[in-house]
Amino acid sequence: MSQTASAEPEHLFLRACRRLPVPRTPIWMMRQAGRYLPEYRAVRAKASFLELCRTPELACEVTLQPIDLLGFDAAILFSDILITLPAMGLEVAFPDKGPKILAPVRDRAGIDAIVVPDPEAELPFVMEAVRQIQRGLGGRVPLIGFAGAPFTMMTYAVEGGGSKDYAHTRKLLFGDPGAAHALLDKLARTTAVYLEAQIAAGADAVQLFDSWAGILSPRDFREFALRWSKRVIELIRESRTFAARPVPIIYFVNGCAPYLEDYATSGADVLGVDWRVDIDVARRGVGDGVALQGNLDPGALFLSPRDLRDRVAEVLAKAGPVGHIFNLGHGVLPETDPEHVRAMITAVRELSTRAGA
Amino acid sequence: MSQTASAEPEHLFLRACRRLPVPRTPIWMMRQAGRYLPEYRAVRAKASFLELCRTPELACEVTLQPIDLLGFDAAILFSDILITLPAMGLEVAFPDKGPKILAPVRDRAGIDAIVVPDPEAELPFVMEAVRQIQRGLGGRVPLIGFAGAPFTMMTYAVEGGGSKDYAHTRKLLFGDPGAAHALLDKLARTTAVYLEAQIAAGADAVQLFDSWAGILSPRDFREFALRWSKRVIELIRESRTFAARPVPIIYFVNGCAPYLEDYATSGADVLGVDWRVDIDVARRGVGDGVALQGNLDPGALFLSPRDLRDRVAEVLAKAGPVGHIFNLGHGVLPETDPEHVRAMITAVRELSTRAGA
Repeated sequence: MSQTASAEPEHLFLRACRRLPVPRTPIWMMRQAGRYLPEYRAVRAKASFLELCRTPELACEVTLQPIDLLGFDAAILFSDILITLPAMGLEVAFPDKGPKILAPVRDRAGIDAIVVPDPEAELPFVMEAVRQIQRGLGGRVPLIGFAGAPFTMMTYAVEGGGSKDYAHTRKLLFGDPGAAHALLDKLARTTAVYLEAQIAAGADAVQLFDSWAGILSPRDFREFALRWSKRVIELIRESRTFAARPVPIIYFVNGCAPYLEDYATSGADVLGVDWRVDIDVARRGVGDGVALQGNLDPGALFLSPRDLRDRVAEVLAKAGPVGHIFNLGHGVLPETDPEHVRAMITAVRELSTRAGA
Repeated sequence: MSQTASAEPEHLFLRACRRLPVPRTPIWMMRQAGRYLPEYRAVRAKASFLELCRTPELACEVTLQPIDLLGFDAAILFSDILITLPAMGLEVAFPDKGPKILAPVRDRAGIDAIVVPDPEAELPFVMEAVRQIQRGLGGRVPLIGFAGAPFTMMTYAVEGGGSKDYAHTRKLLFGDPGAAHALLDKLARTTAVYLEAQIAAGADAVQLFDSWAGILSPRDFREFALRWSKRVIELIRESRTFAARPVPIIYFVNGCAPYLEDYATSGADVLGVDWRVDIDVARRGVGDGVALQGNLDPGALFLSPRDLRDRVAEVLAKAGPVGHIFNLGHGVLPETDPEHVRAMITAVRELSTRAGA
């Protein structure tokens, strides 16, 4: 790596978040600690998903697996975006077929009953996991913390789980926008203090997942999703924690293609790009003020290693060398062969190495 | 209506499909014959979904309901895109929680066993429904026939139903593209002969639904979805049936925003636009060679009638007066109040009437 001023981060991932020159493009992968790894499944055989999330030693173990086994350039905390809901007063079950909120919130009374938790008191196991992971990493790669963005959290709280048409959410948004904003406000404050707690515990970057913002029309994206994610980012930036540790903030909207110009105004340092839009098109849409993270189709990991390498080359060429963090456009599919993941990492390393670096 | 040459269609909907001047914008609604109507639910209480599809009298009855009760400018055949699968050799069940293909096709042997059916022999009840509906309509409004586009049909055949991540589909597309194309070819030929049979029976327009094409990256959209929908449209246009009855062809991709330039090359007369992209943006993307159909958010029907009217005005203003068919951006939600649908129709009629028309 070239000589840099001491204030500049050393790690490839953190440099790319800041749009600083890098000798090669860093790579990590959404859901890199997960079911595609036999080593993860071995841990999961001994503990439920929720036990894994709530036991720092186990969360730490599976977070480190893809770093030790495959060599990504960043680790991401093993957890689930819904882990905050019980602390807000909404019980969640995690059966294998997808999470279920036991008593979804669909009216003003339900929204009024929601509390903004103190993460250190209610979710101490997350912060302890962050500290243990940082000890386990020993500075090898940075650690990314994360949370669900307010709109996406709202869809779970209101629908009670995943949904095909988000009818309950849309009924609330359009039938009682005041109540919807009251819920989004509580979710935004929760998300902000939760991410601040992760930063204080040692996270080197944080990612806000807006997995379902892509179901909204452009004007509703601005009003119900972007507005509240911006608020989270503002709250974090204004915090004492952030003043002490000004880490990069990543915002990921799954299905971002229709909103690119608005997306650019989120206040995040890095924008996640899903696989349904070419990353050069995304770059033209958002301009040069942010780094981009993405965007190989997770399905491309089913390709032969040769064809996979061509797809990697295509993403790298379209993204360019500055301000790009290689990632999938969405979480890795559980059916993926880890050897193909390894081939992807190798391809990114080889194909993105700059001459003379 | 202004004087027109005799070769020009009279009906608003058909004129708009051809980008001819209209005194006001026509409107119909995806799933307009369906569960939001108490009159539909009354028929459904007496017969299963499949019985409804397979009994021409009942299909005719529910197709006419929204015309008689609400006054749309086009009728659409009551059926289901999956109705062709049993004729291809894939049994389908329609429980209330979504369709299930009993033995999904995931390998070459399964694909080789699929047959291209003769619709007149295998699906005679559909063509009989078309004839009965046309008698019932008596020329009041045109009748739209429809089918699923090859890629979307493939996702059902391969996944066995709806899916969250389309892992089986992607495994086939990327793991064995040759087999995927063999399946898509059979689906394209089936779709073409099926739509031709509907046209021969009296359909005044046909719509090809590519509900799941939006899960693909732009290059895979071109290779696996658009290519085969184009093929369907070509096959129809080259047919003897079409030479005798050259009806407008509508192509609807749900989640079309990332593909607009390619979308314009489909060969369809009309392109459907979902609600996640502004229709003026869609127009700039596809150019002036086609009509557009859409694109009010189905959730907007939960708004108060006054706010709903503002949203209708916004869509009309963005779409402009020429080559626009008002529709929702996706199917109406079952929870919708029919009185709000009525308010939408009234708003479209009042707000789109051209001065001097």
